[in-house]
Amino acid sequence: MHRLILIRHGESAYNADNRFTGWTDVDLTPLGMAQARAVGATLRAAGVAIDVAFTSMLKRTIRSQWIICEAMDRMWLPIVPDPRLNERHYGALTGLNKATAEREYGAAQVAAWRRSFAVAPPPMALQDARAYADDPRNRGARAGEIVLSESLEDVVRRVRPFWEELAAPALRERRGVVIQAHGNTIRALIKHLEGMSDDDIATLDVPNATPVVYEFDADMHVRRRYDMPAVSDEGRHSLF
Amino acid sequence: MHRLILIRHGESAYNADNRFTGWTDVDLTPLGMAQARAVGATLRAAGVAIDVAFTSMLKRTIRSQWIICEAMDRMWLPIVPDPRLNERHYGALTGLNKATAEREYGAAQVAAWRRSFAVAPPPMALQDARAYADDPRNRGARAGEIVLSESLEDVVRRVRPFWEELAAPALRERRGVVIQAHGNTIRALIKHLEGMSDDDIATLDVPNATPVVYEFDADMHVRRRYDMPAVSDEGRHSLF
Repeated sequence: MHRLILIRHGESAYNADNRFTGWTDVDLTPLGMAQARAVGATLRAAGVAIDVAFTSMLKRTIRSQWIICEAMDRMWLPIVPDPRLNERHYGALTGLNKATAEREYGAAQVAAWRRSFAVAPPPMALQDARAYADDPRNRGARAGEIVLSESLEDVVRRVRPFWEELAAPALRERRGVVIQAHGNTIRALIKHLEGMSDDDIATLDVPNATPVVYEFDADMHVRRRYDMPAVSDEGRHSLF
Repeated sequence: MHRLILIRHGESAYNADNRFTGWTDVDLTPLGMAQARAVGATLRAAGVAIDVAFTSMLKRTIRSQWIICEAMDRMWLPIVPDPRLNERHYGALTGLNKATAEREYGAAQVAAWRRSFAVAPPPMALQDARAYADDPRNRGARAGEIVLSESLEDVVRRVRPFWEELAAPALRERRGVVIQAHGNTIRALIKHLEGMSDDDIATLDVPNATPVVYEFDADMHVRRRYDMPAVSDEGRHSLF
């Protein structure tokens, strides 16, 4: 039996401030770190075997995975960062408070940018976008392009080759694969894995630090999918 | 120009207690963590390019590398743990205080076990050795064997295939490769790299958290070797 575990990083500084983050490399909050510890304790208590973890190149996923590995007493697990798992580029919304954005653009428009499949937020200014694209953390996300903004469709397009080249082969060979990523890269993966429609993915929300587990049979068909809410050390269900 | 940086982990709990560590998975002390931060600050200040870091499977090297990556603001660097970089198996001396060992076996005998090339410490009890060998952290160090003790010669034998399969190809392709390892695996690597005699390696000591840098030319010949003592954030030379 092969098991894939999708985990959105713990709460980040911008999550706490209700700001669009995108490619900005903000760190976890103390709550985010506690959430990651709880995920590690839950996976350890459940005896889930993990052989490799993929992360984005952004520190909120990497630190989440470090903390999880430490809580599982598996610091020696290979952790493979890949820029194609980076969060969706949020264009001109990057860094903006979500309430401010709603006042400026209207709630319906902001909801469309956040949830719809094909609509990208307004473009980032070229000079800012160039700095993001040149940063080694983002350089391979969409190689050779200066990305101004991304729709979820754009994210699916870059996540799919990551899946085919790295994640699927690892899963075929091994028992347990973690992908520690972001709200929109996980939505893109779920859409790809379940062949979900463009409309259905719009209503799917991925909370921080709640593992989504897929079990595959020997032919690599999904047999089962379930969430694994974090359990505290005392065995009670709780987020932290 | 290709650059190899060998780093012995920061001070561990057993280093602080003056105990033989071997395959025991002890963590860094607060001083060890500060030493790793200083190494990261030094490498960052020197503008040293690093593309990949290899570690052992033991947490004292992995945590050292995590801290260094964080201090360099390069948390996204790939970190590749390999059991062949694990410390020498110290046999029956594992966990023993070095002064106690000298009282029990004599200082000359202990010095021979610590420094000589071909002499292995007395064997560990089979039951204990089996538990170490079965642990996933050590399982690939000498695959399929229950290791009872190791000489430095044994370590050279397992480090050499790691060098040929992983480190040398990475170095040929990339500019900067870190190997974050242990006193005896670094001695084994230096002996291999410099073709050092069995006698000369006996006098070589590798201090914690002091990068040893090798520069290679395009034909992969060593052009230069130098130590890079840690520099504090203020630019003064100091170990922590």
